[in-house]
Amino acid sequence: MKYELYYWPSIQGRGEFVRLALEDAGAAYVDVARSRRKAMAAMLRLMEAGTVARPPFAPPFLRAGDMLIAQTANILLFLGPRIGLAPRRESERLWAHQLQLTLADLVDEAHNVHHPISTALYYEDQKAEARRAAMQFVHTRLPKFLGYFENVLARNPRSEWLVGARTTYVDLSLFQVMAGLAYAFPRAMARLEGKHRRLRALAERVAARPRIAAYLASTRRLPFNEEDVFRRYPALDVT
Amino acid sequence: MKYELYYWPSIQGRGEFVRLALEDAGAAYVDVARSRRKAMAAMLRLMEAGTVARPPFAPPFLRAGDMLIAQTANILLFLGPRIGLAPRRESERLWAHQLQLTLADLVDEAHNVHHPISTALYYEDQKAEARRAAMQFVHTRLPKFLGYFENVLARNPRSEWLVGARTTYVDLSLFQVMAGLAYAFPRAMARLEGKHRRLRALAERVAARPRIAAYLASTRRLPFNEEDVFRRYPALDVT
Repeated sequence: MKYELYYWPSIQGRGEFVRLALEDAGAAYVDVARSRRKAMAAMLRLMEAGTVARPPFAPPFLRAGDMLIAQTANILLFLGPRIGLAPRRESERLWAHQLQLTLADLVDEAHNVHHPISTALYYEDQKAEARRAAMQFVHTRLPKFLGYFENVLARNPRSEWLVGARTTYVDLSLFQVMAGLAYAFPRAMARLEGKHRRLRALAERVAARPRIAAYLASTRRLPFNEEDVFRRYPALDVT
Repeated sequence: MKYELYYWPSIQGRGEFVRLALEDAGAAYVDVARSRRKAMAAMLRLMEAGTVARPPFAPPFLRAGDMLIAQTANILLFLGPRIGLAPRRESERLWAHQLQLTLADLVDEAHNVHHPISTALYYEDQKAEARRAAMQFVHTRLPKFLGYFENVLARNPRSEWLVGARTTYVDLSLFQVMAGLAYAFPRAMARLEGKHRRLRALAERVAARPRIAAYLASTRRLPFNEEDVFRRYPALDVT
């Protein structure tokens, strides 16, 4: 099975959670919009009325044979068991998915910091509001989310991973969230460092996995940038 | 199996998507925080560090035997097949879940309208920003989401429901979203009426299902109010 990933070609964004899983598994895949000219037009066409039976609302989406699957957490729910990155038991799969959805909520809130009024406006049109949003995010929501995941790690009796005895796609996603937060909020994250040692250790273990390390050192890993979900705007890295 | 639903006792909120599924199926369940004194304290305790192995980050969550499952869409993913409200095939289950996650995104954006800066602040502390957010939501995002779901309905060859040949939990959730939007944005929704006839027809069919009709007429159905996800603030019902 060769997978086709459809996502914006110039950002990590939500597509990165899928890329990391495919890379760690050594799965055969094409990052369609980065692989050939005119691929962006093809991607956008799949989202239009009338082209496919089950159109995605937004990227990322994955083609796997006849199936076209959207929503990041849903893609990973589908993909995890097929590429060896999901637990076996249903109860653990639901728990992994629950954690993935909670990470997605954190990602949404981090994105909302630079786009509090609307994603339909530029950051420059909502800078004052973004500053207010950053204050709340950094002081209230961010510590709450990180404390939650630190506690989840502390309470897993079977391993130092989030779910069960082995690495799952959720660990890779948590690595990505930690990397994104460190990029966007370096001062805030440094200040919180002592409170999430397990999260940092997990992120380091993920980064050291051979296929992930090779991926991060390759040109396939796009650099963080200010069109992405995680953005480094010094005005928003409040202390 | 008697299910226990944990959710805030005075709002419909995200718990309502689970309530509607349980009610439509005629499933045996207890709405814990509404059923007895001190139940709220018990609910909050389950979210604290150290009380359960797999703590939820936030309500709603469902207890089913030994399992404690959080995240609305995840609860419905688990519950759907068990109460006869999910399609049989894996591909259709993923499609249903994908639509549910897209509805969750719409609900998040609708909530963000009255809390653009942060959920940690009161609406009164972000009224000016909320007004700006409402302009973007009503004119850009709302028509895009509704157009998407109208198109999904138009393209299902097997029935007038969203997925496959039969009613699923996603239909019930779409009814709830339409009801919430009509409550929060009556003028905007009236203006868009002609553009989503299929959505309105679906919402009417759901409301007429015997168990749903009985539920909506009962005291178990809480009224919409201004502590909820969907709020009627005339200043935000822009035209």
